[in-house]
Amino acid sequence: MDEITQLQAMITDFVKARDWDKFHIPKNLAMSISIESAELMEVFQWMTTDESSNLQIIEKFRNEIEDEVADIMIYLIAFVNKCKISLDDVVRKKLARNEKRFPINNVRGSLGTKLDT
Amino acid sequence: MDEITQLQAMITDFVKARDWDKFHIPKNLAMSISIESAELMEVFQWMTTDESSNLQIIEKFRNEIEDEVADIMIYLIAFVNKCKISLDDVVRKKLARNEKRFPINNVRGSLGTKLDT
Amino acid sequence: MDEITQLQAMITDFVKARDWDKFHIPKNLAMSISIESAELMEVFQWMTTDESSNLQIIEKFRNEIEDEVADIMIYLIAFVNKCKISLDDVVRKKLARNEKRFPINNVRGSLGTKLDT
Amino acid sequence: MDEITQLQAMITDFVKARDWDKFHIPKNLAMSISIESAELMEVFQWMTTDESSNLQIIEKFRNEIEDEVADIMIYLIAFVNKCKISLDDVVRKKLARNEKRFPINNVRGSLGTKLDT
Repeated sequence: MDEITQLQAMITDFVKARDWDKFHIPKNLAMSISIESAELMEVFQWMTTDESSNLQIIEKFRNEIEDEVADIMIYLIAFVNKCKISLDDVVRKKLARNEKRFPINNVRGSLGTKLDT
Repeated sequence: MDEITQLQAMITDFVKARDWDKFHIPKNLAMSISIESAELMEVFQWMTTDESSNLQIIEKFRNEIEDEVADIMIYLIAFVNKCKISLDDVVRKKLARNEKRFPINNVRGSLGTKLDT
Repeated sequence: MDEITQLQAMITDFVKARDWDKFHIPKNLAMSISIESAELMEVFQWMTTDESSNLQIIEKFRNEIEDEVADIMIYLIAFVNKCKISLDDVVRKKLARNEKRFPINNVRGSLGTKLDT
Repeated sequence: MDEITQLQAMITDFVKARDWDKFHIPKNLAMSISIESAELMEVFQWMTTDESSNLQIIEKFRNEIEDEVADIMIYLIAFVNKCKISLDDVVRKKLARNEKRFPINNVRGSLGTKLDT
């Protein structure tokens, strides 16, 4: 069985065992993903972009970072479980669309925003 | 090769081909995850919790939902690529910790907040 | 002196006294507003929309809610201080635009989303 | 009548005229504040902290920034209207608490995080 499928099954069991299905509705889970991603951002709130690019600084915060990444992924999986979405499929489809939206020759080295002008 | 590892490689190639590594620093990517999760929330902003539990209503918004889920996952993978985190590992470790934090007999059917009192 | 102007002056003094101007750059403060608004959302994460409309339930969480509202407003003021924006002006201008964008006769009782269809 | 009180009355009228009270429940409005603050963050997503400190760069994005600041403030006011919170009061109380939490002599020039160590 594949990694993502395994994680999905583990999270389904975790929620079912606690009778938390009634709380795990899409609106609430979308809020949860957003709340956990704000907690990840909090680690970087006051860093300069240079500090944030420095792996030694990242190392100091590894535990907090990994904890928040796990929370985001757990809620994202709980969300796709409820909405019957294949994470693998939607990412592959979006990457294919992005290949067309951002042709290499047009965007190389730039994001095409007003920052460039 | 495993699903998550494959997606990680596809995203690494996508970013490298566009020379976007300089933008993909952890602080910015943490913001990106948060911005995309707000866009997912936007789909549910005005729904009641009952409407959000209704799969027929979810179906009307399936395209938007899948698009935003893909964006969150793509940025989450870009983030773990940069910080050298194994998504699979951190989720398994966190679920193991959560098993202890939320013992089934104590929390069944409740989240243990002031809502219960 | 007006309320908002007074709050702006108090926050300028608070930041200056701590020599925190170097941290209070627009990118960081935009993150701060977002982080604090996620903390406000956390209070409502698992409520149904009915529970959230119940003032007795709101009352149980009044302290947390007021604390997070204050944090959002403080960072919003710190942000407009740095970007030289008049909160009063931009709200009045936006409300005037919204009057035209959402004509009363067209939108009464509905938000004009796919939820209605 | 004071600025904030005036803005509160204008927003109450705007919502009432459209019969949007049924959507403006605290859970939804907390989501709205968070969604709009993510849109403000989006302006700064790919800027370095140095670029974000540069007022000439801020100037290029002034319209978007002011638009999002207005949206955050409008939803924050709609939220305090519903929860019967005085924005002015809660900010003054929080600043008084922060004066004690962050004594000038202890925190001058630093935020007291692991970044300093």
